[in-house]
Amino acid sequence: MANRLTPDEVKAAYEKISNWGRWGKEDQRGALNFITPEKRAAAARLAKSGEIVSLALPLSTKTTPENPQPVQHMMLHVGPHAVAALDYFGIAPHGMAFTHLDALCHVFRDGKMYNGFSNREVGRFGAKKCAIDVTRDGIVSRGVLLDIPKVRKSDWLEPGEAIFPEDLDAAEKLPGGRVEEGDVLLIRTGRHARRIAKGGWDPRREGLPGLDASCLTWLHERRVAVLGCDGVSDLIPNGYPNELSMPIHVGTLVMMGIHLIDNADLEALSAACAKHDRYEFLFAMAPLILEQGTASPVNPLAVL
Amino acid sequence: MANRLTPDEVKAAYEKISNWGRWGKEDQRGALNFITPEKRAAAARLAKSGEIVSLALPLSTKTTPENPQPVQHMMLHVGPHAVAALDYFGIAPHGMAFTHLDALCHVFRDGKMYNGFSNREVGRFGAKKCAIDVTRDGIVSRGVLLDIPKVRKSDWLEPGEAIFPEDLDAAEKLPGGRVEEGDVLLIRTGRHARRIAKGGWDPRREGLPGLDASCLTWLHERRVAVLGCDGVSDLIPNGYPNELSMPIHVGTLVMMGIHLIDNADLEALSAACAKHDRYEFLFAMAPLILEQGTASPVNPLAVL
Amino acid sequence: MANRLTPDEVKAAYEKISNWGRWGKEDQRGALNFITPEKRAAAARLAKSGEIVSLALPLSTKTTPENPQPVQHMMLHVGPHAVAALDYFGIAPHGMAFTHLDALCHVFRDGKMYNGFSNREVGRFGAKKCAIDVTRDGIVSRGVLLDIPKVRKSDWLEPGEAIFPEDLDAAEKLPGGRVEEGDVLLIRTGRHARRIAKGGWDPRREGLPGLDASCLTWLHERRVAVLGCDGVSDLIPNGYPNELSMPIHVGTLVMMGIHLIDNADLEALSAACAKHDRYEFLFAMAPLILEQGTASPVNPLAVL
Amino acid sequence: MANRLTPDEVKAAYEKISNWGRWGKEDQRGALNFITPEKRAAAARLAKSGEIVSLALPLSTKTTPENPQPVQHMMLHVGPHAVAALDYFGIAPHGMAFTHLDALCHVFRDGKMYNGFSNREVGRFGAKKCAIDVTRDGIVSRGVLLDIPKVRKSDWLEPGEAIFPEDLDAAEKLPGGRVEEGDVLLIRTGRHARRIAKGGWDPRREGLPGLDASCLTWLHERRVAVLGCDGVSDLIPNGYPNELSMPIHVGTLVMMGIHLIDNADLEALSAACAKHDRYEFLFAMAPLILEQGTASPVNPLAVL
Repeated sequence: MANRLTPDEVKAAYEKISNWGRWGKEDQRGALNFITPEKRAAAARLAKSGEIVSLALPLSTKTTPENPQPVQHMMLHVGPHAVAALDYFGIAPHGMAFTHLDALCHVFRDGKMYNGFSNREVGRFGAKKCAIDVTRDGIVSRGVLLDIPKVRKSDWLEPGEAIFPEDLDAAEKLPGGRVEEGDVLLIRTGRHARRIAKGGWDPRREGLPGLDASCLTWLHERRVAVLGCDGVSDLIPNGYPNELSMPIHVGTLVMMGIHLIDNADLEALSAACAKHDRYEFLFAMAPLILEQGTASPVNPLAVL
Repeated sequence: MANRLTPDEVKAAYEKISNWGRWGKEDQRGALNFITPEKRAAAARLAKSGEIVSLALPLSTKTTPENPQPVQHMMLHVGPHAVAALDYFGIAPHGMAFTHLDALCHVFRDGKMYNGFSNREVGRFGAKKCAIDVTRDGIVSRGVLLDIPKVRKSDWLEPGEAIFPEDLDAAEKLPGGRVEEGDVLLIRTGRHARRIAKGGWDPRREGLPGLDASCLTWLHERRVAVLGCDGVSDLIPNGYPNELSMPIHVGTLVMMGIHLIDNADLEALSAACAKHDRYEFLFAMAPLILEQGTASPVNPLAVL
Repeated sequence: MANRLTPDEVKAAYEKISNWGRWGKEDQRGALNFITPEKRAAAARLAKSGEIVSLALPLSTKTTPENPQPVQHMMLHVGPHAVAALDYFGIAPHGMAFTHLDALCHVFRDGKMYNGFSNREVGRFGAKKCAIDVTRDGIVSRGVLLDIPKVRKSDWLEPGEAIFPEDLDAAEKLPGGRVEEGDVLLIRTGRHARRIAKGGWDPRREGLPGLDASCLTWLHERRVAVLGCDGVSDLIPNGYPNELSMPIHVGTLVMMGIHLIDNADLEALSAACAKHDRYEFLFAMAPLILEQGTASPVNPLAVL
Repeated sequence: MANRLTPDEVKAAYEKISNWGRWGKEDQRGALNFITPEKRAAAARLAKSGEIVSLALPLSTKTTPENPQPVQHMMLHVGPHAVAALDYFGIAPHGMAFTHLDALCHVFRDGKMYNGFSNREVGRFGAKKCAIDVTRDGIVSRGVLLDIPKVRKSDWLEPGEAIFPEDLDAAEKLPGGRVEEGDVLLIRTGRHARRIAKGGWDPRREGLPGLDASCLTWLHERRVAVLGCDGVSDLIPNGYPNELSMPIHVGTLVMMGIHLIDNADLEALSAACAKHDRYEFLFAMAPLILEQGTASPVNPLAVL
């Protein structure tokens, strides 16, 4: 929790990394613009072995400290002589036990979302700007895993343990780990390894490891398209005053227009990357087309 | 509606195409077993241009004749001084306006689902066998589009208009269109072209084009892994008695263990295939991990 | 679990107590017809002291063995500068932890509901006959509490413990306890006293006290309008074969057209009746107008 | 829309009518404290004829301009050989097509709800103060209908048409219409008569008749326990600046602690009062026990 940047330095970083206007005043896709068809075609060539790994937690219907608002699953009626089975799901995708993609309208700074759109674009029927359906054509690109516990030679990072730019630099040195423009960057903290070993906890109260705010400029220089984490990318708690409670969320979603994958499960990917000794892969994710939505539950895939 | 097979011939076809036991008595994945890592790696090499196309309709919140139970979208509270936006979705994914993947537990024949599991495995909390989460590692394979209106030189097929094996044979002759073991086979009827031109309709009452039951043996011979359609693959109405109301659903889901994508949107894919003059592509789909679920809403992707 | 009636005798009782046709072939209100304006006016005169008691459990959002599908409560968005708070509730009212009123369409016998309407009147959009909205004008009448633990001089009845007609006769002898035509009859088993003392349990697995099937003719003779219980009126388990698993539900809802209040909380009412030494009172209940619904959550009131 | 009070006068009225502290610093029930057991017993004596009338609209599942977020009704699975029917309801009770009771936590003024509780008591899991479950024992009292169109000799009031204290005075002169301490006061504007005659409209855009802010002191002097209306009591639009957009809501819920029934259906009650030539009756309402909720759907009853 020794923040490397003062609150004023965080605010200065926000201005420095801003991508507002970079792709035009009306742009709602932000850093997804870094992903070109050529990037996708090159990414596909990384699927050498064809081994596939899911990066998602199940959308659990069980109440736990991590999951106070679980998915509600109702089996539906199909008539008196059932020859089929149907169901209904109630999902609040932002839950901290659900792997989801945050839309750029999810977070505001001084009343504004990415590219300066007002938070008044978000009303009781949803968001008219930067909703999750800007990703309707899917996100297929090169994926890179930065496996922080691996380079720290630990099983996992503890809640409240910060990741600094030099950690990212170190993890990049693993084979294929160099982050490039348009990549989907996945940061492993080992959260789920810890959960399996020690039981679950409430991340809101007990914290999560995550990125120090000093990583923002690093992410900006690398021109990352999407950022994902097995936590929520942000460090909890981070010691900043309330208005800076989520500097990574604000810096990525609002300032750079980088969509965030929260609560991914990166354990199987870590094992697969170690097995193949390769930390780059074909990444494919297809958010649901939830018009005006602020997030989608997702099941991101890596093909090595 | 001139069915090529009598009811008894349909039943005989069911027995002939059965994959029950083919991958062991406990298998719940069915024809997904046709997709090998090698198949996936080869499929990735089809993503030559990097052009990407979504095959999904939006998950609409609007009530229409096609969508009597639309998605319910609620924006959630985030405190008195909102710096974020959250939401909740209520989704009954089997709706005929939603692009979804049917699980093998969705349909029964004589009280049994794929591989002979009893429909008593489906209770009020969901399905204990063959639920949608058997696809948790995603479905990435070669995709092939059979563009039936194109080979029939029409804009679309009419509701109730049947597709026969010779139509599939004809569409296969388009470049790259030959169906192979482990493919995701997509059948275009032009439903959404018709909807855009003429307005929507209630498919339950007014019908859909689809496959004649005689196509079942064709699908079996080709060893298709997944079948998708812009309708529901089945012809509506089909003139069979009630017990045979959905022979394609029963023949694929129950007998062959082939998962079905219902209500895909294949218009953009049709245009892209025509542009590239190539009807094969990298197909990627990541159903949500809905344990015990009978379906997942999906956003399938094609990369050409 | 020593059933007093053989299965054949239960079936004979069904025929004997049938009210099918009693109020006309098209009637959907059943025994509610016993409640006349005069009955209501007389009932109102029982509200002598003005003391009021709720007979409902909270609609709990917590998962427990009794409540595997709790109410889902979502707080809704009200804009960036909140001056209000709104919410959303997802409720499956038939849950065994929820006080609810069963509609006459809730249960079938041989494919038929009350008055001989087919269960085919119930489709995926709800019930076209005997839905809960037949109670839209509310149920106000004389209420009577039969406090079985009190007359048995116990704190509560145990799961699986049966109530027989002679228990009802004994409880009727308490002041004001005589059951009359058009009454709302409430049977206390002490379920919630037991829960508070010993913790909750899953009634589906571990049982509930309830009425022996021999009480059906008693209920018929008394011309009860509505039956309520702190359990589900039926004895669980009851030792009958599957087809007779719920003889009180079938006998009341299907044969007599008596609406059932399940899972009431009768502890406070028991105390109030003891205090006033009077087991009759003004009863008022206002089911929600859920058209085509099979139940409504309710908060029944007693005014003594 | 000629407001009788200036914005400053409205604010002065707020202070004058305040009941904060009147029933103690911890009180969460507000004007419900006016209803005593004696009041209830006296109210019951008004149920002379026993005629009963519902004051609720159906909880409609249909999308209309008034009902953009209708109730979601799903029929539930009950096994392969259905002998029962179950369902699920998704309800956002504050909808302007739903008859509901606003909790005192529903609206804030300067960050505070009734009795000075902070709006920070309302979080993403609900309200910890002044939630709807303070009404768990039901609301039974004398009801009075003030039938404004009747005294204005019109069929209905038009959207935007204001009701002033002298209108209330005039309507009180109808038989039994004098408002007394602890009453449930119902104000009819004829909204549903207009809807039936002319079709529905969106009240948010096109307005509703309602009370001028000058009625607040009138309500305070009369010591009303609960206020209900076939609109939302407030006049829409009212010409005040945004911060005063709902002076009746703020004055009743926040300042006086008066619960509000919004969107009642008072047409049948108007007819019944005219028939009996009596505008007082037994009123009974039993909100669901939705702990931490900001409202409950209700079906209020009048017995004349």
